[in-house]
Amino acid sequence: MVRVAVDGMGGDTAPHAIVKGAEIAAREGIAKIILVGDEKRLRSLLETPESVEIVHAPSYVRMDESPSLALRKKKDSSINLAIELVREKKADAVVSAGNSGATMAFAIFTLGRIKNVDRPAIATLHPNLKGGITVLLDAGGTVDCKPIHLAQFALMGDSFARHILKITSPKIGLLSNGEEITKGNELTKEAHSIIENMNLNYIGYVEGTDLYNGKVDVVVADGFVGNIALKISEGVVDVLLTFFKQNITRNLRGKIGYFLLKDTFKELARKVDYAEYGGAPLLGVDGTCIICHGKSNERAIRNAIILAKKFAENSLHEVLKKSMEEYGNS
Amino acid sequence: MVRVAVDGMGGDTAPHAIVKGAEIAAREGIAKIILVGDEKRLRSLLETPESVEIVHAPSYVRMDESPSLALRKKKDSSINLAIELVREKKADAVVSAGNSGATMAFAIFTLGRIKNVDRPAIATLHPNLKGGITVLLDAGGTVDCKPIHLAQFALMGDSFARHILKITSPKIGLLSNGEEITKGNELTKEAHSIIENMNLNYIGYVEGTDLYNGKVDVVVADGFVGNIALKISEGVVDVLLTFFKQNITRNLRGKIGYFLLKDTFKELARKVDYAEYGGAPLLGVDGTCIICHGKSNERAIRNAIILAKKFAENSLHEVLKKSMEEYGNS
Repeated sequence: MVRVAVDGMGGDTAPHAIVKGAEIAAREGIAKIILVGDEKRLRSLLETPESVEIVHAPSYVRMDESPSLALRKKKDSSINLAIELVREKKADAVVSAGNSGATMAFAIFTLGRIKNVDRPAIATLHPNLKGGITVLLDAGGTVDCKPIHLAQFALMGDSFARHILKITSPKIGLLSNGEEITKGNELTKEAHSIIENMNLNYIGYVEGTDLYNGKVDVVVADGFVGNIALKISEGVVDVLLTFFKQNITRNLRGKIGYFLLKDTFKELARKVDYAEYGGAPLLGVDGTCIICHGKSNERAIRNAIILAKKFAENSLHEVLKKSMEEYGNS
Repeated sequence: MVRVAVDGMGGDTAPHAIVKGAEIAAREGIAKIILVGDEKRLRSLLETPESVEIVHAPSYVRMDESPSLALRKKKDSSINLAIELVREKKADAVVSAGNSGATMAFAIFTLGRIKNVDRPAIATLHPNLKGGITVLLDAGGTVDCKPIHLAQFALMGDSFARHILKITSPKIGLLSNGEEITKGNELTKEAHSIIENMNLNYIGYVEGTDLYNGKVDVVVADGFVGNIALKISEGVVDVLLTFFKQNITRNLRGKIGYFLLKDTFKELARKVDYAEYGGAPLLGVDGTCIICHGKSNERAIRNAIILAKKFAENSLHEVLKKSMEEYGNS
């Protein structure tokens, strides 16, 4: 059975929602769960303490803490000890909804980077209008990128789409401010000229919309731009739903209409709910690491554990390692 | 009466939709219209040729043309001759739905930049959930920015919100990948430390959502990030409406529900329709210049002319000039 280490102390809703989500996953038999954190607090929140294993961590990283400071001073934090379990092969994957900068810093420090990857990237999964999944990377791992980093993201995205999503020849696009070759900034222009000479199904610049319409399987961006694209999408959806609710309930006609369309609204809410996938893999580190939304609820944590299990079973980081090594040799 | 020069040849829908929109504005008495472009073609499309003046331009800039090449080789293009009319004070403002890079290049070349502005910015207007308007700049003018450029955008945004939107003490935010001070990339970190020392109501980093929720009046970003944020918003709205339509019409219940909610849907579509404002002012050049969406239809062009009129009447660029000069002296 796949063993998943869960950072019990990380996230806006920690430890409560994390413990609940982990416990649900354990009871559903999804994976063997190792909860890492303040043992007493975690144990007191468990309904069925025998369903999970607990590893005590003396400290934890707060959401607003500086990742570089945490890296220096909190090696005994729940997130780092959870990552240590992966390094020691006592766990097959780690899941954290905590400080994502610190999670990344510890993952690089403790697990190390895989060969030919200078910077790791967070890969988020998006259901698209064609019924498939589009991968965005980097969604916030590396905010200051050089062109070669974007090229490495393209390679990792290709490998991920090929081996995990089972897409034969993944279409790859570079996120820009327009499709024309005259568009882009200095970073994307240089990255473009590197990527177009790689052996990839690269279609050039794409726009934000292409994250959702199924035109490409992989969207490459630096972590700053990728994260903003991601968050603004969530924001727009929230704004639209708020607007709908304001308007729909203002008269009887609206109320009846809403009643008839309730299922559609629910399906929509589910479709854009970050909790549906639960988390996003950190690609480029030597181990399976899932980063969750800071606001993760128990369902998101449970689903992130399912994702962790799937990636561990598919040996995600071994697959990436092999792809990146082949690239280095080519 | 305000005189507006309209680039008749610029835009995906040019010249047809441009001519129609300009003609509607002229017939509604919004402004005196000077259409610039291929005289024969423009005249043949006019229903009431006497309603507008035509200025002939021997060439025009294609949508996919390189702005720097156009700048060198097409000084006789419709966009540059329209801008010339503003420089010569034969028009009070210029409106173009053409190649935005070329429009910007010619605006800088022909009108010049105002003092203490190194790079112009496109300012888009967004209705927010609080019923007000939030300004985003730069929405795509300058894709490679230095920290000082972002600081100048903050100053121009403040002046715009204060004098044109009549907001007493505009709240200003810097678009980033999170609100915490530990977030941001090298560019935003340096810009942040400049802007926080300026005499502005600056609240620090904001996220994409804050473009729509009314938390701030002005969102500052570099043109690459701002443009991506803008386009992804449009994209998400399109995706959601498509999803709704797919689901709503699939059974009788959905059809009746949709019928009852039709007004709400229409209001929503109108709210997110770029054509509502028609265009966005280019701030930082010495003249009033409105840049429209390449896909502008006749309604968008008409509304852009209304915007141009409003800005010309409020002496937008004179106001900005004064603000930026005061800043330079402080």
